[in-house]
Amino acid sequence: MCRWLAYSGEPLRPSELILDTQHSLVAMSLNSPLGAETVNGDGFGFGWYPEDKSHGNTPALFHSIEPAWHDENLRELTSSIASPLFFGHVRAAAGPPIQQSNCHPFRHENWLFMHNGFLDGFLEMKRDLVLAIDPSLFPLIHGTTDTEVLFYLAITLGLQDDPIAGLGRAIRMVESVGESKGIHFPMQGTVAVSDGNTLWAFRYSTSLKSRSLYHSAAIPELRELYPDAARLNVFGEKAKVVVSEPLTDLPGAFVELPESTVAVLDDSGFHHEPFLERTAA
Amino acid sequence: MCRWLAYSGEPLRPSELILDTQHSLVAMSLNSPLGAETVNGDGFGFGWYPEDKSHGNTPALFHSIEPAWHDENLRELTSSIASPLFFGHVRAAAGPPIQQSNCHPFRHENWLFMHNGFLDGFLEMKRDLVLAIDPSLFPLIHGTTDTEVLFYLAITLGLQDDPIAGLGRAIRMVESVGESKGIHFPMQGTVAVSDGNTLWAFRYSTSLKSRSLYHSAAIPELRELYPDAARLNVFGEKAKVVVSEPLTDLPGAFVELPESTVAVLDDSGFHHEPFLERTAA
Amino acid sequence: MCRWLAYSGEPLRPSELILDTQHSLVAMSLNSPLGAETVNGDGFGFGWYPEDKSHGNTPALFHSIEPAWHDENLRELTSSIASPLFFGHVRAAAGPPIQQSNCHPFRHENWLFMHNGFLDGFLEMKRDLVLAIDPSLFPLIHGTTDTEVLFYLAITLGLQDDPIAGLGRAIRMVESVGESKGIHFPMQGTVAVSDGNTLWAFRYSTSLKSRSLYHSAAIPELRELYPDAARLNVFGEKAKVVVSEPLTDLPGAFVELPESTVAVLDDSGFHHEPFLERTAA
Amino acid sequence: MCRWLAYSGEPLRPSELILDTQHSLVAMSLNSPLGAETVNGDGFGFGWYPEDKSHGNTPALFHSIEPAWHDENLRELTSSIASPLFFGHVRAAAGPPIQQSNCHPFRHENWLFMHNGFLDGFLEMKRDLVLAIDPSLFPLIHGTTDTEVLFYLAITLGLQDDPIAGLGRAIRMVESVGESKGIHFPMQGTVAVSDGNTLWAFRYSTSLKSRSLYHSAAIPELRELYPDAARLNVFGEKAKVVVSEPLTDLPGAFVELPESTVAVLDDSGFHHEPFLERTAA
Repeated sequence: MCRWLAYSGEPLRPSELILDTQHSLVAMSLNSPLGAETVNGDGFGFGWYPEDKSHGNTPALFHSIEPAWHDENLRELTSSIASPLFFGHVRAAAGPPIQQSNCHPFRHENWLFMHNGFLDGFLEMKRDLVLAIDPSLFPLIHGTTDTEVLFYLAITLGLQDDPIAGLGRAIRMVESVGESKGIHFPMQGTVAVSDGNTLWAFRYSTSLKSRSLYHSAAIPELRELYPDAARLNVFGEKAKVVVSEPLTDLPGAFVELPESTVAVLDDSGFHHEPFLERTAA
Repeated sequence: MCRWLAYSGEPLRPSELILDTQHSLVAMSLNSPLGAETVNGDGFGFGWYPEDKSHGNTPALFHSIEPAWHDENLRELTSSIASPLFFGHVRAAAGPPIQQSNCHPFRHENWLFMHNGFLDGFLEMKRDLVLAIDPSLFPLIHGTTDTEVLFYLAITLGLQDDPIAGLGRAIRMVESVGESKGIHFPMQGTVAVSDGNTLWAFRYSTSLKSRSLYHSAAIPELRELYPDAARLNVFGEKAKVVVSEPLTDLPGAFVELPESTVAVLDDSGFHHEPFLERTAA
Repeated sequence: MCRWLAYSGEPLRPSELILDTQHSLVAMSLNSPLGAETVNGDGFGFGWYPEDKSHGNTPALFHSIEPAWHDENLRELTSSIASPLFFGHVRAAAGPPIQQSNCHPFRHENWLFMHNGFLDGFLEMKRDLVLAIDPSLFPLIHGTTDTEVLFYLAITLGLQDDPIAGLGRAIRMVESVGESKGIHFPMQGTVAVSDGNTLWAFRYSTSLKSRSLYHSAAIPELRELYPDAARLNVFGEKAKVVVSEPLTDLPGAFVELPESTVAVLDDSGFHHEPFLERTAA
Repeated sequence: MCRWLAYSGEPLRPSELILDTQHSLVAMSLNSPLGAETVNGDGFGFGWYPEDKSHGNTPALFHSIEPAWHDENLRELTSSIASPLFFGHVRAAAGPPIQQSNCHPFRHENWLFMHNGFLDGFLEMKRDLVLAIDPSLFPLIHGTTDTEVLFYLAITLGLQDDPIAGLGRAIRMVESVGESKGIHFPMQGTVAVSDGNTLWAFRYSTSLKSRSLYHSAAIPELRELYPDAARLNVFGEKAKVVVSEPLTDLPGAFVELPESTVAVLDDSGFHHEPFLERTAA
């Protein structure tokens, strides 16, 4: 019930996308024309992989329960670092309390995970889903959101070996538990996953009416299309942004991801693959 | 840059007005159709006079920097006490930082004070205004808002003896300092003041285009008009609400306060008086 | 890993015990000479039953993640209400994150529950304990503490019908799960439980070395003993306080509760009963 | 009324000093054996100059009102960046409210400023001191601490041209205003100032009984003294730490700064100079 943004490419100051664009993530937190809620003021999170990999590629997290639009620390932090891959998320809480442990993105080892949407009927399904999580992972659940349960379920089912298959199995289990409880459309939303090198962006819902998801067109093509757009100068050739709503009104700058699709993005480019596509058949 | 609500009458659970009405203060914090900002998520405050006066009539305060709509403590508190006179305020910050010491209402001895609006050019005027505050009151300024400075200026100029004259002199001083700095319309807004017995509600701006302010019609008349409105049963005969925007769409339930007017409300009823009315002449 | 205080008697301003005594709960939060930790600065909670029962006897809660010693809202709230039965708790976190949903006391219907101590090896036992909670209660778990799990386990096992038997069974289950994991002393601490009329205060640990717990002597006896103690004037004849550490150095004012004992306190007086006493035999 | 730490040298992960040493700043926040208060739990701040100067040398700030010991964001941030010059501060509030705008360090352009101690009688002196601040700087005061007033007073009196002379004049003005109010010992404390290249550390109080201040000995000498100390490996040859209390019990590792002295530290080494030394004569 939220908005999110993920960046992959040359190291970039996150504030360029989180604060400074026409429809930045923080601007979206106050007013999301395409979102189900118009205000996303119930905390936010920011996760970033380091530019300098000499201490490893574990991402760092910043979580806050203040609305993103007036958080000075977010402004300071995202203006003073550079990162080749980062996630930002603003939350509109739909039940679980507003607390740092419920802020996205979630982290496990070198993996980040965030979600816009919800598991419908989560409180009815929660016990069964939690039981399906590997007992060794169970103590790592720190918060009380549906998303964190989905993340550990996906890890249990192989996300770290094959993110598309692992998340697919987790969603199928959610749908199966949902069905047993009489919940017709248990999965809703868009999900971002990364291991620090590749970014997977999923759009899928049981009802086949998912929340919106876009990613940027290739920068070299955009430069050709808009040779005078000074704004593009901050981006490198490999820059890619995946986001709940386009960050700019520039025609052609953002591509909508179709239903039941996953976009796979890395330094070599991007491609789309079908994801769980025959669900509602 | 905010919304506020003040109640006077028989002791009432504040949650009736702050949480539970059609356009309650918390509902307004998420979406204020008549307000200059649509989101008032930058903290809130609640001040209430005690039902039991055996320990005096000093009001208590609850200030929080969380958005009002998800604050569990606000819900618990306003559902568990009763008060014959209380103020509630949701803030959309226009500069001064979001911190408890900047949350309305402000208190001095048995007086409460809150404001929707702003002093235009406050940072340019602040030094002169602060110098005009009685040096014995100066150390009591805890925050950094324009409203708190206006409050202590009004106290310096006689608010506690005559609230209408005291606030009038303070606003005139603001306008005079503003003029000396080339600021044309320094005062904007609506103000609520109480000593614990009487409630004064002011609507005034230098430009004569003040933010909206309403108060409820007399309950006995409303009961006659709407004999079937179960909602009215929670209110006593003396209940009066002053509020930035009507709490209900019920025609006739709320009276708009005209420009340059103060409403004086107490247990005996209410009346309007002109306030600084020839300003822009 | 905390300090707590519970009061039962004539309606009293909670600030009298929470802020204003020689060794008040807030003073203890900064320095607990008898406690295992010297600082209890990781949030606090306050729960109180209403003086006016006309809307029922459900307690209200105030939870905060700020240290108690500088929380203005706690000061304002506890100085402005009166309550015949209230709980206060300051926390020194031992693992689960500092968030409002992890602050004691916990509430279920008209019941309050709080704890000083811990379940040793909780993360290893958590999955088994959570599975033993009634599935209908499972979705009500909002936080991630050992205490909340113990509370819902005790409710599952009959706390609301018989608090002593219900908590006893829950602790036995904790000990049984602990034993199966090789944890020798799983239960440690003191627990307060109330239904709004009676207050049960437990002191028990598997190792038979529990944290300290005291309750006040009868006020009439104290008045006879200290006819000049002005401090006693704020208390009624039925006033009783249960607390981790004595609130005053006055000899005879506080009685230590023995190991493996429960004190049952209500308006008619108090008595002690053995609790799970042969555990370590 | 606080503890602080400043580092200058080769770029370092701040967590090495703030979290991971024997008597790290966070450890000191829970227990300061040499400090006037044993708990410094009323918020903290962290300010750091960038490793990459391509966007300028303006420092970034992180301020929080949570106790430092359980702040996950502080841990994440200080473990994921590197900085050649940073300040950390834990606060024990002595009056002004706990809010981010009262957290040290304070920043003006490329300057950082922090303080352990207080201006005695500040509320009596505040009006006169605030009046002495340059009117163009007056609107930049965001909080309500004595330290921020001292900082802007020092800037008014030349800190940016000559930090030792500027702060000296500001302290002399504080002492002069204090004397006029009958305050005998208005200045107390230790102060750190930096422009991003040089670090000035002052120890001075009107009473000549200042709070403690230490800085580290030269790393090459320490390596000779302790050839087996693995701990030293994380530091470069130019590393210097100034701190309220020694970070380690290693004899010879820390040098106490005498009363009425300023230490000047930069990449070329350090030296001491007398500061306002004949004050109490």
